[in-house]
Amino acid sequence: MDLSKRALQLKEEYPSVKKVALSYSGGLDSSVAGRLLSKAGFEVLPVAVDIGQRSDFARIVSNAKSLLGDCRAADMREIFAQSAQRAIKSNFGSDGNLNSGGISRPALAAALAKEAREAGCQAIAHGSSGIGNEHLVMENALRTIAPEMRIMAIVRDLDLRRDDALAFAAKEKLPTNLLRAKGFSADENLWGRAIRQGFAIDPSAPIPEKAYKWTVSPQAAPPKMASVEVEFSGGAPVDATINGKRVSGAAAIFLALNETGGRHGVGRADALEDKAVGLKSREAYECPAAMILLAAHRQLESLTLTTRELEAKAQSDALWARLVREGGWYTRLRRSLDAFTDELERPVEGSVSLELYRGSIIVRGRKSRRALYDSRLSSRDSKGVFSQKEARQFAKLYGLQDVMAYMVDSD
Amino acid sequence: MDLSKRALQLKEEYPSVKKVALSYSGGLDSSVAGRLLSKAGFEVLPVAVDIGQRSDFARIVSNAKSLLGDCRAADMREIFAQSAQRAIKSNFGSDGNLNSGGISRPALAAALAKEAREAGCQAIAHGSSGIGNEHLVMENALRTIAPEMRIMAIVRDLDLRRDDALAFAAKEKLPTNLLRAKGFSADENLWGRAIRQGFAIDPSAPIPEKAYKWTVSPQAAPPKMASVEVEFSGGAPVDATINGKRVSGAAAIFLALNETGGRHGVGRADALEDKAVGLKSREAYECPAAMILLAAHRQLESLTLTTRELEAKAQSDALWARLVREGGWYTRLRRSLDAFTDELERPVEGSVSLELYRGSIIVRGRKSRRALYDSRLSSRDSKGVFSQKEARQFAKLYGLQDVMAYMVDSD
Amino acid sequence: MDLSKRALQLKEEYPSVKKVALSYSGGLDSSVAGRLLSKAGFEVLPVAVDIGQRSDFARIVSNAKSLLGDCRAADMREIFAQSAQRAIKSNFGSDGNLNSGGISRPALAAALAKEAREAGCQAIAHGSSGIGNEHLVMENALRTIAPEMRIMAIVRDLDLRRDDALAFAAKEKLPTNLLRAKGFSADENLWGRAIRQGFAIDPSAPIPEKAYKWTVSPQAAPPKMASVEVEFSGGAPVDATINGKRVSGAAAIFLALNETGGRHGVGRADALEDKAVGLKSREAYECPAAMILLAAHRQLESLTLTTRELEAKAQSDALWARLVREGGWYTRLRRSLDAFTDELERPVEGSVSLELYRGSIIVRGRKSRRALYDSRLSSRDSKGVFSQKEARQFAKLYGLQDVMAYMVDSD
Amino acid sequence: MDLSKRALQLKEEYPSVKKVALSYSGGLDSSVAGRLLSKAGFEVLPVAVDIGQRSDFARIVSNAKSLLGDCRAADMREIFAQSAQRAIKSNFGSDGNLNSGGISRPALAAALAKEAREAGCQAIAHGSSGIGNEHLVMENALRTIAPEMRIMAIVRDLDLRRDDALAFAAKEKLPTNLLRAKGFSADENLWGRAIRQGFAIDPSAPIPEKAYKWTVSPQAAPPKMASVEVEFSGGAPVDATINGKRVSGAAAIFLALNETGGRHGVGRADALEDKAVGLKSREAYECPAAMILLAAHRQLESLTLTTRELEAKAQSDALWARLVREGGWYTRLRRSLDAFTDELERPVEGSVSLELYRGSIIVRGRKSRRALYDSRLSSRDSKGVFSQKEARQFAKLYGLQDVMAYMVDSD
Repeated sequence: MDLSKRALQLKEEYPSVKKVALSYSGGLDSSVAGRLLSKAGFEVLPVAVDIGQRSDFARIVSNAKSLLGDCRAADMREIFAQSAQRAIKSNFGSDGNLNSGGISRPALAAALAKEAREAGCQAIAHGSSGIGNEHLVMENALRTIAPEMRIMAIVRDLDLRRDDALAFAAKEKLPTNLLRAKGFSADENLWGRAIRQGFAIDPSAPIPEKAYKWTVSPQAAPPKMASVEVEFSGGAPVDATINGKRVSGAAAIFLALNETGGRHGVGRADALEDKAVGLKSREAYECPAAMILLAAHRQLESLTLTTRELEAKAQSDALWARLVREGGWYTRLRRSLDAFTDELERPVEGSVSLELYRGSIIVRGRKSRRALYDSRLSSRDSKGVFSQKEARQFAKLYGLQDVMAYMVDSD
Repeated sequence: MDLSKRALQLKEEYPSVKKVALSYSGGLDSSVAGRLLSKAGFEVLPVAVDIGQRSDFARIVSNAKSLLGDCRAADMREIFAQSAQRAIKSNFGSDGNLNSGGISRPALAAALAKEAREAGCQAIAHGSSGIGNEHLVMENALRTIAPEMRIMAIVRDLDLRRDDALAFAAKEKLPTNLLRAKGFSADENLWGRAIRQGFAIDPSAPIPEKAYKWTVSPQAAPPKMASVEVEFSGGAPVDATINGKRVSGAAAIFLALNETGGRHGVGRADALEDKAVGLKSREAYECPAAMILLAAHRQLESLTLTTRELEAKAQSDALWARLVREGGWYTRLRRSLDAFTDELERPVEGSVSLELYRGSIIVRGRKSRRALYDSRLSSRDSKGVFSQKEARQFAKLYGLQDVMAYMVDSD
Repeated sequence: MDLSKRALQLKEEYPSVKKVALSYSGGLDSSVAGRLLSKAGFEVLPVAVDIGQRSDFARIVSNAKSLLGDCRAADMREIFAQSAQRAIKSNFGSDGNLNSGGISRPALAAALAKEAREAGCQAIAHGSSGIGNEHLVMENALRTIAPEMRIMAIVRDLDLRRDDALAFAAKEKLPTNLLRAKGFSADENLWGRAIRQGFAIDPSAPIPEKAYKWTVSPQAAPPKMASVEVEFSGGAPVDATINGKRVSGAAAIFLALNETGGRHGVGRADALEDKAVGLKSREAYECPAAMILLAAHRQLESLTLTTRELEAKAQSDALWARLVREGGWYTRLRRSLDAFTDELERPVEGSVSLELYRGSIIVRGRKSRRALYDSRLSSRDSKGVFSQKEARQFAKLYGLQDVMAYMVDSD
Repeated sequence: MDLSKRALQLKEEYPSVKKVALSYSGGLDSSVAGRLLSKAGFEVLPVAVDIGQRSDFARIVSNAKSLLGDCRAADMREIFAQSAQRAIKSNFGSDGNLNSGGISRPALAAALAKEAREAGCQAIAHGSSGIGNEHLVMENALRTIAPEMRIMAIVRDLDLRRDDALAFAAKEKLPTNLLRAKGFSADENLWGRAIRQGFAIDPSAPIPEKAYKWTVSPQAAPPKMASVEVEFSGGAPVDATINGKRVSGAAAIFLALNETGGRHGVGRADALEDKAVGLKSREAYECPAAMILLAAHRQLESLTLTTRELEAKAQSDALWARLVREGGWYTRLRRSLDAFTDELERPVEGSVSLELYRGSIIVRGRKSRRALYDSRLSSRDSKGVFSQKEARQFAKLYGLQDVMAYMVDSD
């Protein structure tokens, strides 16, 4: 069925909606969605949200204006940087799944809800497809923080395929740069760049070099390494010194490390991920800052937290990651896990020094006034505090039950 | 108190012991332990076990003979390689703790028990200190598989400090290479090389370059990358093709990847670890083969296991790692977790291709006839099998409970 | 829309289906479903499966024959009893959720698939609604073990409400006992009796006494207690002695304990459960045998498994319960968890004695030749094996890290 | 060796200690410990702490005075009641292990530390043996909150056996009621009564009726049931109505429910528990209040928390229980878990009604203005909010991955 006709059905499905706030990223889908909504007779207000994408944000806004007559621009960089900082505290992504949809979409939703209300909209439209988790995250967020708004998932609900979108854009003479977007689509923010499409066909084939934009290949990186020192307070990165230059504040640290890391070939990942609907999806990432900060953070945790704390944190982190990935940002459970983490991470303060070299993040050292590591205790040559002879009775009791089990166990 | 006098107390403590099998590694501690036991009046049988250390094994044996008059040599490489393969199946070490004591000491214990029995010993002596987990692992293993043997932990129970050991070795004119072993002590086997001592004083200082023996620094690695393809069956690595050359069998794969990986600067780690007695310990590792195989194995798991299976496996892997590290090799629980893993990993077959470049392990692709990834399903442009429109109802039900919770929750 | 018309749409939706095997329970829904399918023009083969329901099974079969002209009867009692035994091994239900749909529907599905194939059907129809997990469990089972069959969820897909079903039954002059089924619907099998409907309206109101059929109220139970001794092998109940009378085999034990337990007021539960779609549902149960066996089984586990084993088992049991409840019976993950449990439960053998008294299950004692409890070890008055003085060094090392953490922690 | 001589060794071991605060429970061990410390030349200050034991507290204090010349009495009932309330919030004990040492010893330690400091003591002595976890809990608590105090574990470190203690008490003419304490020793507080000794020899034998003091047997309970309604706020019990009589506040609720529950035969348990040193121990309990409140609390959680929240809480509760049992009361991890629970339990408010009848706790109903249960949603006959037809697409996507796994899986 013709796309324009499908769009008209939207008008029937949402009779009470007059004005729609549209999440506008500047890409093909949101441009097509905007035009379709217009043609269907809705008043469309595109909303462009700055969450640290490296594309030319001003151009996105001006594109939206030329396309749809108006555009609201919202700067969520500092707010999103706080979410990203919290993600570092929770070791989000250290399991290899660096997808930031779970933390970025709630920030988009918050901005959309605010603009939609101020402009008197009755609905919010977004362009996430039905494949990944993004539509679940976006809609769960909107349903909780803007329950009075109707939600239109243009791509998913109209089953908008990429070739149909391209054909429609050509026919409608939408800006030509969209027509060139054949190879890859990407999702950018402070946390990193997620790349999709095109290469997804065969997981046995390598990601093509041209898919990457933020990072050079390790081979193309300079022979001189970069030195990075990150300072943490309460488990969150608060300062960084990069090749001797100091940057402060979450947003600035992410921006600077994305730049330096990318120049040294650091931050690439190629993964198969499990989505909430039960499908696997191949994703490629460039997340220099996130990867550097995650490596540093874990080092500091291993220095300042007890064994039991590390084990409990591993469970809590796993719950946090899964919850957030599957749309739980605005839940009491997330707040509860954060309350746990905030209390537990209070001693996670100090600094970690690293080197970036041709794709590698190399830990050099870590220090903290809250360190639980005491070299006097952990050397057999120490005097006074701990004698290894004391370990003898410990050893005797230690395996008691296993030995008993072995004895009664004749099978 | 004088070391020789302390050794004499052993004779009093173990009156019924005449002959002792001594775990002999060729290092300072086991040489000193052997001499002390001799001086105390025990008949000492050194046992040297080959588990893939790269040192000159023949020389270890001849040293033992010159020092103590006799030596039994046991080749446990194939058996230990099976343990290492099983460790890869269980993603052992992928949490950053690459310590192999939990898998290597049980292999040593098995060889020691066999030789001790054949030679009519009443006791087994080992040189693990009371600091790490090794003494717990070794003793738990011996108490279950050789309950009739007394166990002597020479270093721990005599509180043998390193400087005392060096002084004793000098006085007793033990081989001069031991006297040079001032800087570092290392524990080597197929799984990798663990380095201790000397640098442990300050976790904020980097590991000195001279501590490494198996790996070059990333900067010193050749500009040409190595290509590696690993083939898995039932989750275990069974073949590898390294720069076009094929090697088969677990032991050969570990040996070859340790060599190639080390040449490309791959495999180093610098970690703070938690020991069973509640102390943290700083450890440095060189584990090229283990790191490469772990990276490859996780890729194949992500291609062939369902979401639920991956989650259950993560829990089981964490239990396995902790159990094995803390001395549980010879337990029913380990066998039970293995039974789980063996069944679950049956579809984990196929191959993963990687590149090694100046310290980095880069995943290129993975394939399997058991892949759960279907590019037709995971693209919004697919036709027939899955329509993204179907995700709409899913999305509606998906967040239902969270939205209800938000509504009734006015705090 | 008229029910008969809705049924006709089925004919359009499934043009290639001529003959349908219908899961026939004898209740209102399956009777209405059968008549609707007939009227829609399908050839209908009702299949009645005996899994230990206490209703008159022969009458169910004869009802089906009079209603639909034919009926296949399948006896799955022994096979289902093995599933129930396995559920006991996995402590299924000890978290308070006694719903047996996850274990009973796969048994139904297996019988349906077999009968449908033998009779040359192209589809299998069932009457589970879209509210609980039963439709997910049934369909997941059928999609894996009978992928060639189309699946019709009559109640769910036609949105068949209870009052419409009653009206249709009256109009069609279906057997009058169905018309009386206004108050409660129940799901019966060896595991127990699940009661729904009617009382569900207000969770603050008690379950009405008339909802229960298998159990008397504690007040109505006899003043003389029943004595029960259950014998386990490999974690599974294999024999039971009830008031001195011995019964053997899983099916017989469940039947006998359901009878005796019910007579003593044992086995009732009133719970709010979480379903896979994200809804809560109030359920009442009568599961005398399951509750008695679960209590006995946990006692024997506590006697024969080590601390670590009990902790690992708790995790595995939680995974098993959730997986099975949500439709994972025919998965590799279930088989993998079973492999774990089968190995771990080998020492869980011995007997447990209990008393049933007016609703209470009272544990009297447990014994096993594999007991890990040694009264000599666990008394401070024991001599020789363990001295409590040894616990002093243990205590010293035990809290070491917590004390360090407290010291460096000034907040 | 003679007890008095062993005691004199204490004086040698603790040369700088002049005055010792002694944890005085009024039992055999603490009386013997007091006399031994006196004879060894220490100045002894007995401290008796009221945490809700039902014994005559005034008599304990006067006994101590007559025995040792002085006694400090500390009333910790309200503070301990808050700990007990927190334990209910964390479902502590719902796994069957009702031991309250982990919550009672920290309260004792707090009182001891305060009194010891005020009286200028250099040491604190307690009478926990080396068998259970109590000595670990007590010492971990004291080491963190009173690091300047030396700790003397009289029973454990002198290896004080029960018969030696009885003989010493007879010789020293200690109060005669101690000499009668041959059968059982018990540990009492608001949470309940833990019984040990004597019956521990054979886990296959039932607990003798005379071991119980707070509860009658179910058979001896009155035929008229008691009705109880408990009101919760933020997950904590704040009010209770017992047979129409209202009591408020944590301490009062525990006291009243212990009394009423005990009268109706409610609260007994017979368990095998795993201790931190790796031993199993048989314990009997009478905990009427704890059991009633735990049952009520879980009902309210199931009504007001989402599925994910319940799952996360189960993990957190398990960590809390293990941590607290093993001595972690005064840790950051406990505070962190509490922060999680406090936030998560905010909606757990409302009331639960129950009946107590001859040993059984019967749930009648639960209600909350924060209920997530909506009878309109969970019935197939509801109109509007949720249609079961929507569950069809859900079901289709639901099992997708399992079906794929089954298809590619030929083994």
